[in-house]
Formats: sequence, structure tokens, C-alpha cells
Amino acid sequence: MKIAVDAMGGDFAPCNIVAGAVDALREQDCITRLFLVGDSARIEAELAKLGQRDPRIEIVHASEIIAMDDPPVQAVRRKKDSSMCRAIDIVKHGDADAILSAGNTGALLTAAHLKLRTLQGVDRPGLACLIPARGNVFVLMDAGANLEPHPINLVQYAVMGSLYSQQIVGYKRPRVAVFSLGTEEMKGNELTLEAHRILKQSDLNFIGNIDGHDLFANVADVIIADAFVGNAVLKACESTARLIGHWLKDELKKNPLRMFGALLAAGAFKALKRKADPDEYGGAVLLGVNGICIKAHGASSPKAIKNALRVAAQCVGGQFNEHIVEEMKKLHDKLQQTESSQPKITAVG
Amino acid sequence: MKIAVDAMGGDFAPCNIVAGAVDALREQDCITRLFLVGDSARIEAELAKLGQRDPRIEIVHASEIIAMDDPPVQAVRRKKDSSMCRAIDIVKHGDADAILSAGNTGALLTAAHLKLRTLQGVDRPGLACLIPARGNVFVLMDAGANLEPHPINLVQYAVMGSLYSQQIVGYKRPRVAVFSLGTEEMKGNELTLEAHRILKQSDLNFIGNIDGHDLFANVADVIIADAFVGNAVLKACESTARLIGHWLKDELKKNPLRMFGALLAAGAFKALKRKADPDEYGGAVLLGVNGICIKAHGASSPKAIKNALRVAAQCVGGQFNEHIVEEMKKLHDKLQQTESSQPKITAVG
Repeated sequence: MKIAVDAMGGDFAPCNIVAGAVDALREQDCITRLFLVGDSARIEAELAKLGQRDPRIEIVHASEIIAMDDPPVQAVRRKKDSSMCRAIDIVKHGDADAILSAGNTGALLTAAHLKLRTLQGVDRPGLACLIPARGNVFVLMDAGANLEPHPINLVQYAVMGSLYSQQIVGYKRPRVAVFSLGTEEMKGNELTLEAHRILKQSDLNFIGNIDGHDLFANVADVIIADAFVGNAVLKACESTARLIGHWLKDELKKNPLRMFGALLAAGAFKALKRKADPDEYGGAVLLGVNGICIKAHGASSPKAIKNALRVAAQCVGGQFNEHIVEEMKKLHDKLQQTESSQPKITAVG
Repeated sequence: MKIAVDAMGGDFAPCNIVAGAVDALREQDCITRLFLVGDSARIEAELAKLGQRDPRIEIVHASEIIAMDDPPVQAVRRKKDSSMCRAIDIVKHGDADAILSAGNTGALLTAAHLKLRTLQGVDRPGLACLIPARGNVFVLMDAGANLEPHPINLVQYAVMGSLYSQQIVGYKRPRVAVFSLGTEEMKGNELTLEAHRILKQSDLNFIGNIDGHDLFANVADVIIADAFVGNAVLKACESTARLIGHWLKDELKKNPLRMFGALLAAGAFKALKRKADPDEYGGAVLLGVNGICIKAHGASSPKAIKNALRVAAQCVGGQFNEHIVEEMKKLHDKLQQTESSQPKITAVG
């Protein structure tokens, strides 16, 4: 398989991106070609620093960079020779199976949607994240792609998120839930109530609503929300974890006894940090576009990039998008059948 | 001042409610009468357990209880003699200034809105929570009252949340922000973009958008969101804190060295727990209704009830609702003035 990497996207590009890509090639024999797209001189310099040069690497020069704070739509429209747009073009033209970027999220979502288009049966793509919980790892989707979704978009996210959980996390029959304000069926807004109603007719392992209290309680493996809520929840969780880390550090530093205690227990803190480390989970994936599209976070370490490329390889190798198309067809048939079997009320004029 | 307490609402009612109320009376001389509403025999029994009997306590018998999982609207409609409805009725009839309940949130919001009505100038009430951050304590509003708000509702929340921050937290000029997907002005959905536009014309200390990443970064003192997002963020933060606590405990228990270290550093863990303890912050307040309405969380300890009653006393004592009405009038005038000073486009037929 072939993968295109936006070598210039992210806070530590091209350094961390190139280093992570080189690491990934060492582990992933299935990658037969890896395009590093961006400023060729700078990419060459990074490769030179790392010493060896894998023959599967091909540098593709791009003269522009989409900055992290560029307005997405304009950036995609104007910076046609940006590393991000050029990397996506490689997938669009069929020369690569997947694209990875740690750059401007909005621009990546826009460019991937515009250039790759959606898969057959998918109306809108959605961003899926993996989040570690107590006893399971769950998919949160949509984490930021589609701001004003319709109920059917959420239902399609459930199908794609479920497949993602199966393929990447390895759950046989992932439990799917709609994120709402409470677990009761009647709780929610118009969007979630209607998505709930449709999901009950699907063949998914749908368990109903979940609220923020049970997020980490090993109740659901796929949690569906609109982009605004998904993004809010994702960032709120990350911020809380950071806050507690800061507070704990402050408190442990307050006297020598606590500091000595912390030293003895250092292994526990390290293990905790590893457990909560987003770099372990290989970034977010834009599901539903015609090509595998991975968004690593802006501050990605080489390890994060390596893991994101592992996810890309798993998706391509497992023919992930082909499965999405199949399942969407099944969903469509199932819903048509259910809706047509229900008695219809006809207006009598 | 007089306060009505729903003695039967919450997971540990009437025990914790009565105990917290008795503690509050010890600290709050300004409370001249405290109505304990509910099953009089059970309330009497709790008071007997506590030994002394404050003469300011008056028991009001109510034969029914709204359960935590009762459907809110039906419960309020049918259980007219419930402790919650009767407690609110006392405020409605002008015999008390504030109502406190740790019971069914949805029922409390419904009953308070229906029975007390909104303050002049307020279209919809909203639920405000205090959340501790790094270096400040911020108000999050709406945390669950108004599911499909209009932009002007969010603007009114900003005014009320700002006053709440001034009166309860003590900030002179609280920084107000709209919760969105990013800090850039053009980021958001229709609701937040329009609320943002109106807030820029207000006299509030409006700083623009905030996203989940900066939630605890001491950037804003009042954060405005629709109920769905506010509720999601609040619960996600609480869940993350709990998850990290569990994980840390698991890791610290893994070997004797870590356990010993944790013992030495125990003071730090206790301080952290105290910092993140919702019981310190006295519950959520439904702002915008004609009367002070406090929602303590379901699992409230006596300390949580005591602190919630302190907040109630502060609101009543500071003539909080009178200030809301004044500020709403100012907002209204300001917006009318700004909108009328803008050039209007007239359709020419």
C-alpha cells in the first residue's frame, strides 16, 4: 500500500513528521511507498539528520504550507500547491491509498471532503477519535467535521464508527450509543431523538443514550454526537486531565515529604501518563471519504505520527472503506424495508 | 430571609438534607426561617437524631415525593403535593425567598419555570454552575435547562452569569466567553455566531470565543453554551476527573513501594480531592426565575447542602434578582440603540 504524508503540517513539522514516518516504515512492511510531501530541501535535511534513507520514501515537492490558523476554506482554495492539498491530490489521483496530516484540522476536513468526495451511501464524513476508558477504548464521532448534521448523518456515523471499532480496536460487536443529556430514551434534542429512533431499527448493537457521566464507565464502544458536542466533549476531557495533572504536581511539590512520596510512586504517575497519552491512539480518522484520511494532532510527537501511520495501514489493509460501502447499502435496505412495513397515514383531501 | 428546602429530594434524603440545613442555620444568622418540606414524621425523626432543634425551622408536610427518575413534566403535573412542588409553592406565594432541592433536576427546572415564571426581561431561565480552574473559578451556563435556545437566550445568560460571578465569586468585571469549537471569531454554529455578534455590542466584558482546550486556563470567568453542550462539558469534566482518580488509585496499589509513596504524599491527594470537590461550590443555580432556585446535586452530602444554602443566602441578601432585572433593562436599551444606529437596508419594490 501507498501512503501520502503532509510533511509540513503541525507544530513540529517537518521534524517530527519525517521522524515518525521513518519509524513507521521500520515497523510496517506493508507500506510499499511513502510520499513525503512538502518543502523538499527541508525534508531532505530531516532525512539526512536521521541517517539512513528507506528506498520506499519518495519526496514530492510542494511550495506552500497551510498554517495552523489559516481560515480553512480560503486556505484550501488558494494554496493549491500546499503540502496538504498536494498530499490529498496524490490519493485523489489513485497514486496513494491514505493521507496523513498533523496540520490545520479545518483545512484537512475541507480539502479531503472536496477533493476525495464521500463514499457511496455516505452523505457527510465525520471525524472519529479513539478514547481510552475504564476497561475499554471507545470511538467518539463526530469530533469536529459536520457542524449542522441531520439525524441520518448520525446514524451513518454509528455504522462507520462501529466498523472502525471492529477493525482498529478489535471489538466483535461494539455497543453503540447516542450521546445525550441522560440515559432515558426521551431525553435529548430533536437531532438525537430522531437519530435514536432510526438506530433502533438498524442492525447495529445499539444500546440507547449515554450521558457524560457514563462516558468512561465501559458502557459503550461507539459514542455518536454532532461535531459541536463531540468536539466539546473531547477537548473538555483533555483539559480536565491536564488540569488534574497540574494540580497534582503543584500539590506534590508543596513539601519534601510529599516530594519523596511522589518519587517512590513515580512508576504509577508514568503509567497513568501513558494510559492517557493521545499519542498512543494514532490520531483521528475522517470516516466516509473516498480514501483513508488521518488527522494527527498538531503537537504530534514522532511516536504519534508512527501510530497514526499504523492506523492508516490497518485501515487500508483491512479494506475499511469497502466495508463501509457494503454496510451503508445494508443500512439503506434495512431502513427502507422497516419504513415501508410501517402503516402509512395518507392525507385524505 | 426565608428559605424553603425540599427535604425529600436527592439520593440521601431526608438524612443529608436535614443535616445540611441544620448546619447552615448555625452559620447563617441571616436566615430567619427555614421550611423543611416533606414527610413530617421522617423529617422529625432526622431532627431528633441531630439532637437540638433550631426554632427557625418549620416543617411543612407534603405527602408525595418526585423520584429521581420520574419523567419531569408528568411528575410536576401529577404530584402536586410533592415536597418539591410544595417547596416551590412557598416561594411562589411570597412566603420564602429561595428554594433548594437535591431532587430530580428536570422536574425542578420545570416546576420552578412554571410556578415562579421568569424575571422581567428574561425570556428563558438557565442553569449556572461554578467550576474550579487554574487560578480562577468560572461560571458555566446553561448547564441543562434550555435545550433549543435562541441567540438572545445565550446573551441573557451572559448577563446573568456575569452578575452571578460578581456576587458569588467576587470578580469585579468577569470575562465572558462563548463556548465554541475554536477561539477564532468565525468558528461556531449559527447559534454561537449570532450570540457572539450580539454580545460584542453589549457592555459586558466580552472576550470572544473559548474552546474546550482553554476551559481551565484562566481565560474566562463566565462561559456560555446551550444546555446540551453545557451539560455535556460539565459531565465530561466530572467523568474525566473520576476516571483519573480511579486509574491513579489502581496504579498506586500495584506494588508496596508505590503504596508507601502514596502514603507519604497522602496530603497532596487529599488537597486535590478537596480542590475538585463539587460539594464546595454549593450546587447549580437556576438563574432568571422569579425567586432564587438552587439545585444541589443528587448525591449531596450535608456539606454540599450547607454550602448550597450559603449560596442561596448570598443571592437573596445581595438582591440578586433585582440586579438581573436592572441589567436586562440596560441590555435591552443598549441593543435597541445599537441596532437602530446601524444603517438599515430597505427593500425597494
